[in-house]
Amino acid sequence: MNLSKQSNLGKPKKISDFDDREAITEFLSKNEGKRVVVVQGLGFVGAVMALVCANGVSEEYAVIGVDLPDEKNFLKIKSINDGVFPLNADDPKIYEFYNNSLEKGNLLATYDPLAYGFADVIVVDVNLDVEKVSSSTGNLKNFDVDLDNFKNAIKTIGTYCHENVLVLVETTVPPGTCEKIVKPIIDKELSERGLKVDRYKLGHSYERVMPGPEYINSIREFPRVYSGINDSSADATEAFLKTIINTETCALTRLENTTATEMAKVLENSYRATNIAFAVEWSRYAEEAGVDLYDIVNAIRVRKTHANLMYPGIGVGGYCLTKDPLLASWSRKEFFDSDSDLDMSINSVSVNDQMPVFAFNRLVQVFGSLQGKRVVILGVSYRGDVGDTRFSPVEVFVNLIQKEDALMRFHDPYVSNWEEQDCEVESDLSLVLDFNPEIIVFSAGHSLYKKDETIEALFSLSEVKIFDAIGTLNKEQILTLGSKHKVSVLGCGDENINFCNK
Amino acid sequence: MNLSKQSNLGKPKKISDFDDREAITEFLSKNEGKRVVVVQGLGFVGAVMALVCANGVSEEYAVIGVDLPDEKNFLKIKSINDGVFPLNADDPKIYEFYNNSLEKGNLLATYDPLAYGFADVIVVDVNLDVEKVSSSTGNLKNFDVDLDNFKNAIKTIGTYCHENVLVLVETTVPPGTCEKIVKPIIDKELSERGLKVDRYKLGHSYERVMPGPEYINSIREFPRVYSGINDSSADATEAFLKTIINTETCALTRLENTTATEMAKVLENSYRATNIAFAVEWSRYAEEAGVDLYDIVNAIRVRKTHANLMYPGIGVGGYCLTKDPLLASWSRKEFFDSDSDLDMSINSVSVNDQMPVFAFNRLVQVFGSLQGKRVVILGVSYRGDVGDTRFSPVEVFVNLIQKEDALMRFHDPYVSNWEEQDCEVESDLSLVLDFNPEIIVFSAGHSLYKKDETIEALFSLSEVKIFDAIGTLNKEQILTLGSKHKVSVLGCGDENINFCNK
Repeated sequence: MNLSKQSNLGKPKKISDFDDREAITEFLSKNEGKRVVVVQGLGFVGAVMALVCANGVSEEYAVIGVDLPDEKNFLKIKSINDGVFPLNADDPKIYEFYNNSLEKGNLLATYDPLAYGFADVIVVDVNLDVEKVSSSTGNLKNFDVDLDNFKNAIKTIGTYCHENVLVLVETTVPPGTCEKIVKPIIDKELSERGLKVDRYKLGHSYERVMPGPEYINSIREFPRVYSGINDSSADATEAFLKTIINTETCALTRLENTTATEMAKVLENSYRATNIAFAVEWSRYAEEAGVDLYDIVNAIRVRKTHANLMYPGIGVGGYCLTKDPLLASWSRKEFFDSDSDLDMSINSVSVNDQMPVFAFNRLVQVFGSLQGKRVVILGVSYRGDVGDTRFSPVEVFVNLIQKEDALMRFHDPYVSNWEEQDCEVESDLSLVLDFNPEIIVFSAGHSLYKKDETIEALFSLSEVKIFDAIGTLNKEQILTLGSKHKVSVLGCGDENINFCNK
Repeated sequence: MNLSKQSNLGKPKKISDFDDREAITEFLSKNEGKRVVVVQGLGFVGAVMALVCANGVSEEYAVIGVDLPDEKNFLKIKSINDGVFPLNADDPKIYEFYNNSLEKGNLLATYDPLAYGFADVIVVDVNLDVEKVSSSTGNLKNFDVDLDNFKNAIKTIGTYCHENVLVLVETTVPPGTCEKIVKPIIDKELSERGLKVDRYKLGHSYERVMPGPEYINSIREFPRVYSGINDSSADATEAFLKTIINTETCALTRLENTTATEMAKVLENSYRATNIAFAVEWSRYAEEAGVDLYDIVNAIRVRKTHANLMYPGIGVGGYCLTKDPLLASWSRKEFFDSDSDLDMSINSVSVNDQMPVFAFNRLVQVFGSLQGKRVVILGVSYRGDVGDTRFSPVEVFVNLIQKEDALMRFHDPYVSNWEEQDCEVESDLSLVLDFNPEIIVFSAGHSLYKKDETIEALFSLSEVKIFDAIGTLNKEQILTLGSKHKVSVLGCGDENINFCNK
């Protein structure tokens, strides 16, 4: 979300002040005849899910996005209604879909929970967070799952929805949540309003959204796994998904119950987190043994069964891999009374959280004290060619460098303001070079940095120390750079990659 | 190796008694003009590597297989020379290649280390073992790498080889071994014989042999990673591999040094071991949560990046995955003075070693005491459609059942004698059924067991309890069987899969 540069529109009012009945009614009357989809939560998933629903493959819905009234959402909601989509995305389809919905007038954003009452389908895309307690090196000591916000969101739905609605949960939840949390809450709310509890449908289908150049396609053109708390719920979920996702090319897979699909989601992400953690350990080993882990991984990836072996890197970020394994382990104990943790999966989070600390230690080890040094950080997002800085490992890495009293500048083509660090990020490389850096760190795998012309521009001037923490540079670039500069690559032994002009 | 049914040929003589000079000389004169390849070690890799070399894609070698004089090898070597290939393999190419070499007369087996002296190329395929100390549940407490046999094998080469030989190590070794162990030993032996030490070539290229229906192809038609201790060694290794492997369709990847390729091998296998261990934890969780992990894994595997996610199972066996992660961790500390273990990789071995114990516990949990029960075990090898019982998890599982005083029968289409357990294995299913089993366990994923006609034959009679520990049965088979029998599937909640005629 890139809103901070907009003018301050004042503090939000209390929720009771946001009576949007008039706007909602007007919107619905303009969209008469269309079924109504309400998307709950307008974050990185919900905002784009709203666009996808407003541009369905086989049905044109009236779509209302609802979020809680706080300062950030205040700007976001105003922005959506005022004709500026509040995501700084690299996917032209985002703007295409948004402009379509403006033209058709079938997208509205609001705080007013009244919207749920008009919904045929409610898609739940709210956050469900994990609180981690870690040591200074990132070693995970403890964690807890915070269900309060999620429960409140479901309660609001139950307070306003009609009894025939389809509630489709997309939020990543501890497996068991739809059956053990969502259904009881909605049942209770409907009962208290004197409504039937056997008419609504409750489905679960997890998204695999990937912010970046394929943002829309990562929802619309991507296989889906889904389920319902009963057969009619699963049928309704399937029918709805078929109207918004291109199921001609993307498989829809039904699982037996909502616990199964909830587990599929966290298993999928835990698998990836574990494979990344695996690469972490071997990175350290490769450095010690003086070999190049990138070469080794590339050699192994020739084998099809091993093609998704991970490369070394600076760490794991984003909203999913940093917490999903913990949701699973929490569910195992809390919902299913297990005596056992999911040790490997928990450990993967801990190992991955330590990666930026490893990277910092290596930097100091190879290039010495950073005190007073001018350091340029290339890339602050957690992933290549994406402007998402949530839980970016670069944050931990940068904080450690800052403690050494280094002088820093940040560059990222996709981030102009680093929200979590509350600082400016340059998008112009020449401004960064004017800083006359002594150390340049590659910390996000943006394709801009891999271009020969970028490398030439960056390193044409005086000798500089280069720390590639993310495998940005290829062999040839390293060899070329190594003839003039000092180059060190995370996951590779330094004696091996032209370090110190060898 | 399936030799136990052959007649006892008597105790082997001492090595000094095996003067095979005459046979070797005769063999070489018959094969005059051909370059000589000596394969050291005639186990599951070496025996088949000898066939591949004797049937090179672009060169016809004279191939001599050498192994140590012990009772097992005595039978094996005699068998090779007498026209009976000593492997009970499911790959017709094995017999085709063996018969070709018989016709051409370019394959000899011997104990006599004199053979190394005639070699242009020596391929090292001897074992390098790990000793594990584990708790009764398979929990790994300690381990050590036994280099003695390997060092002796290399010393023998150094004692006999000429100074221009190419020594190609294929054995899976702790990374660093070629530089830190093999080269010093050969240098020393050559020096002591007054020979030059800068002329021989030393390469490393690991095999990816998979006993089974693609046994030969898993060497000949499979990508390879290789290296040498110097450029000329790497060149010689490449040139040799090109003569025996179909490099038109299979990539040859050169890495920078032997430590890199040695690391690639153990990383590759540690990756797989870790992914299997990952599935183990989630199997237990799925059982507790009452969902079917096979369904979940299948749903996730639709996603290409997750297509090699592992299924639940009874355990990990075979010679590689059960030890290779430990070789790596050992090397990290012993060869590269690291303070750190490869914790995740070590842990994967421990988790996997506990799998058959989990399976046994589940069996007792769902079907009660096994005392005096008639139990049939379907499949004793460690892998589907393979007759390899080395470190089979079924062994641990069966030993636990035996302790319960159950009455057991074993069936396996690929194993007639279970060497490690020293017992007979039936190949005829009807004999097993005559036993009138109360419990039938699927413990190896042989395709025979997946056939509808097998299932019909097995379960047409009286009611029986079925324990599928390896995902042999598909959904439809489970549903059909569940209407008459009690079915429990490892990795699935029992409430979920038609258990107890639900």
